[in-house]
Amino acid sequence: MRYELYYWPEIQGRGEFIRLALEEAGADYVDVARRRGVAAMEKILEDKRAARPPFAPPFLKAGKLVIAQTAEILLYLGSRLNLAPREEAGRLWAHQLQLTISDLIVEIHDTHHPISSALYYEQQKAAAKQRASAFWRDRVPKMLGYFEQVLQKNGGQYTIGRRLSYVDLSLFQIVEGLRYAFPRRMKRFEKNIPGLLALHERVRERPRIKAYLASERRIPFNEWGIFRYYKELDA
Amino acid sequence: MRYELYYWPEIQGRGEFIRLALEEAGADYVDVARRRGVAAMEKILEDKRAARPPFAPPFLKAGKLVIAQTAEILLYLGSRLNLAPREEAGRLWAHQLQLTISDLIVEIHDTHHPISSALYYEQQKAAAKQRASAFWRDRVPKMLGYFEQVLQKNGGQYTIGRRLSYVDLSLFQIVEGLRYAFPRRMKRFEKNIPGLLALHERVRERPRIKAYLASERRIPFNEWGIFRYYKELDA
Repeated sequence: MRYELYYWPEIQGRGEFIRLALEEAGADYVDVARRRGVAAMEKILEDKRAARPPFAPPFLKAGKLVIAQTAEILLYLGSRLNLAPREEAGRLWAHQLQLTISDLIVEIHDTHHPISSALYYEQQKAAAKQRASAFWRDRVPKMLGYFEQVLQKNGGQYTIGRRLSYVDLSLFQIVEGLRYAFPRRMKRFEKNIPGLLALHERVRERPRIKAYLASERRIPFNEWGIFRYYKELDA
Repeated sequence: MRYELYYWPEIQGRGEFIRLALEEAGADYVDVARRRGVAAMEKILEDKRAARPPFAPPFLKAGKLVIAQTAEILLYLGSRLNLAPREEAGRLWAHQLQLTISDLIVEIHDTHHPISSALYYEQQKAAAKQRASAFWRDRVPKMLGYFEQVLQKNGGQYTIGRRLSYVDLSLFQIVEGLRYAFPRRMKRFEKNIPGLLALHERVRERPRIKAYLASERRIPFNEWGIFRYYKELDA
């Protein structure tokens, strides 16, 4: 099966959580908008005849199936790429953790866009400073603390069971992204999440991930994605 | 199977999307914190030995299984309560729509709490006014417009296939909640979503939903939940 991933070609964004899973699995896939331009993606988004139109990218084409929502795409791919448990309880547990990561991603995005995604960052800078402070004071300790606890309780090697899952890959991306967007704040916080840091390190050294990160397929972080570096938010 | 739902007893909140599904199906369930107090819920949240601890309410106990995240609980219940298609593509489509409703719920919540849930509304009123305006200008047309289109394309009676699904119940709650929280803005907007309004009406008249809404089990809207009425946000 050749998968087609549709996502914005200039950013890691939400698509990156799916790219990491496809790369780790060595899956046969095309990153369509990077290869053929955004028009190919917009054509599907604007198709008035589509029976099940995606609301927004990322979405995945797998044969005739078109599915959207990052966590749902990973739920679908998880068992097929061997990146999640197969039985129902394990599958639901992986998906549940991924949905909490989705919630965290929204909160990370909103540190620089607390008022509206339709406005520039510069137009909401004051509110962004407040939101970023509250995020690091209340939310990061609670949410990363939760994942640290889940990881430790599972023995520290993987988040789920005895094998790597898409949740581990996503947590790698969260650590990587927070280090990019908030280097000072993250440095101060890292002592609280030794397990997640070690997991991040192990994921980064996996052969396929290592090759991917060094390739042109990995888009560098920038100030259009979810993780953005704005000095004044990184107090 | 007797289901146990764990959610805050004073609000509709995210738990309401699950309550509506359980009620429509005539399922055997206990709303645990309403019946036995929040201590019973906190006991599970704080259980250090739990293998798969929920991050936050709502969560559902079904036999030995404990699952969290509103959309995941509905994914799980959907096929069991006959409120979603059974085959994979249909199940994924229902879940995908529900995840977009989850995104909408976060945006609705953030109209009154754009900076932090740990602060009072009064401490973020100025930002809330801006966010509520942007929400109604950009997001409501886009998101409710999407659901209107999906509904119309499916014939207008149900969102998915030829039977009621949990997505229809959730869209009922969205219309109901927006009417409560933003009566003036919603009144002006309603001409754009005739299909959703008719769906809302049909759901409200279903015998079990009607009985539920008239019962004490339905908690009234108030200013602690997701949908809150603040006159100054309803310009």
